[in-house]
Amino acid sequence: MISSTRSRFEAALSALPSPDACAIAAARARQAQLTKPPGSLARLEEIALFFAGWQGVERPMLERGRALIFAGNHGVAVHGVSAFPPEVTAQMVANFAAGGAAINALATLADLEIRVLPIELDRPTADFTRAPATTEAECLAALSIGAEAVEPGLHAIILGEMGIGNSTAAAALAARSFGGAVSDWVGPGTGLDRDGVERKTQVVADALAFHADAPHSPFDTLCRVGGREIAAMAGAVLRARQLGIPVILDGFISCAAVAPLAAATPAIVDHCLAGHCSAEPGHGLLLEKLGLEPLLRLGMRLGEGSGAAVATLIVRAALATHAQMATFAEAGVSSRA
Amino acid sequence: MISSTRSRFEAALSALPSPDACAIAAARARQAQLTKPPGSLARLEEIALFFAGWQGVERPMLERGRALIFAGNHGVAVHGVSAFPPEVTAQMVANFAAGGAAINALATLADLEIRVLPIELDRPTADFTRAPATTEAECLAALSIGAEAVEPGLHAIILGEMGIGNSTAAAALAARSFGGAVSDWVGPGTGLDRDGVERKTQVVADALAFHADAPHSPFDTLCRVGGREIAAMAGAVLRARQLGIPVILDGFISCAAVAPLAAATPAIVDHCLAGHCSAEPGHGLLLEKLGLEPLLRLGMRLGEGSGAAVATLIVRAALATHAQMATFAEAGVSSRA
Repeated sequence: MISSTRSRFEAALSALPSPDACAIAAARARQAQLTKPPGSLARLEEIALFFAGWQGVERPMLERGRALIFAGNHGVAVHGVSAFPPEVTAQMVANFAAGGAAINALATLADLEIRVLPIELDRPTADFTRAPATTEAECLAALSIGAEAVEPGLHAIILGEMGIGNSTAAAALAARSFGGAVSDWVGPGTGLDRDGVERKTQVVADALAFHADAPHSPFDTLCRVGGREIAAMAGAVLRARQLGIPVILDGFISCAAVAPLAAATPAIVDHCLAGHCSAEPGHGLLLEKLGLEPLLRLGMRLGEGSGAAVATLIVRAALATHAQMATFAEAGVSSRA
Repeated sequence: MISSTRSRFEAALSALPSPDACAIAAARARQAQLTKPPGSLARLEEIALFFAGWQGVERPMLERGRALIFAGNHGVAVHGVSAFPPEVTAQMVANFAAGGAAINALATLADLEIRVLPIELDRPTADFTRAPATTEAECLAALSIGAEAVEPGLHAIILGEMGIGNSTAAAALAARSFGGAVSDWVGPGTGLDRDGVERKTQVVADALAFHADAPHSPFDTLCRVGGREIAAMAGAVLRARQLGIPVILDGFISCAAVAPLAAATPAIVDHCLAGHCSAEPGHGLLLEKLGLEPLLRLGMRLGEGSGAAVATLIVRAALATHAQMATFAEAGVSSRA
């Protein structure tokens, strides 16, 4: 398993597979013959090429898509950094299981299998303003859970999360990975008021100061200011890369999960699509740092993989047109004058 | 039939039904109880309220959605204003019938019935640089075809078009309706080069000059610089409004079809969603003039209703979450701290 030891995690991050250039060329040649003005499907064509490259086929598919929803609890929640109480994490996990959450409706619509993986909800991470959020062993265990949830043969994975307090961890991860003003990375999350955002900003600043002298490697940053569901998402992204499976990222938290990895190794997101840009103010900046252009800008800010699940519909549109359209020759349509 | 005479067209435009405020209030009350932070689905919530209002129900649906693809030919094509020859209109209509076009793949994905309505393809409109594009009778006939394609009981209609030369007509319609520099409204369409765009701009300027002294009523503008598929789309929008059926507009051409109506009566687009903002440069400006914020910005520029069909997937996400999510009480989830 890639993430069962720290050294395997680091080795995986330093040996990232590339997409299949031949498959991309074949897909591009096909697109040039489809009954449409060249380039007129724009982003849809780019998505099809992206999937062709990672799946290594001219006509990529999405029959086996899986939404992975990781959940964890956060010691930093004691500082009142969320509009909701910590017990909501477990309550929402029950809601996922019962089929009542937004992600259930969206995954059904997008024809995605849902796997909900709560990770030790009764053991919140440590309050990272005064200790590492997780021990190395806890972080490795969470990385492994994420990695193991990604199996060969999947056509795409969609990342989502649930964890009261985790936008605070995400802000700390992004700030520690990419620098800049702490306030640029801190937002209202599920709905903090202005005082709450100020308090949250101070909490993140305190955490960054506490860990300032510790090593800044991806693994260390994940341990110190991350969380179990966050490490699991990082593990899933790494494992998906090894298997050539495209990943659709969701909002600020899922992007923050890859931030420490991307700060060291920008190519880690080459197999990732940004599903959307959320309303959380730091998300747009984080997407810029990751070099990802989001598919959607609908102002969503729910998490759970909801934005990525909606974006999956756009991916389906891309793959359907790419696979199903007739060529000029097949349809007897004249090409350009 | 609303559009069988000019006076009926004008009467319909002056007596536009409003959405059902009670249904919107009921839908809003439901949203406040769903298991998510208030407002966190953002645009998806707005879409659900929009559909609730027009359908007049708390939980709107989209079981019967229809994509209407109108096709027409344009006399102005003699000026070389398109990258493709005029016979492509009929060839693409055949491609739609055979199931090989982008809209076929997208409508199948979005679970939309497709109706393709070619309108007298063997009789192009007149060259509108020197005559009205259509007679009043021809324009009324096309308006009626559009209106008749919209039936009570549909949950939404998606508008699309095919017509070599129709982005020239669209530019003329937009410019005559909203003014501004002609060059702001003229773009490459299916793929003109810079010389082609310059030629097209001159053609539109010539047309505007030729018709400058003619009346500028919506009907007159449709007759003078429109086209049959364009008038049909206008007729469909009007009829959908009378029946309380939401409309998803596609690109520059479908928006230009309502431009003359909207310039006189801005509320005509109140039951319309802008599916996307296309790459055609005038489309973004036209959406501003119409007061519509597009759901998608994917750089698409294909027409055929393709952008609207992709946007239908977003509408489905909105309606699915609105209808299917559990409430806080049902799920036993704590609300805000």
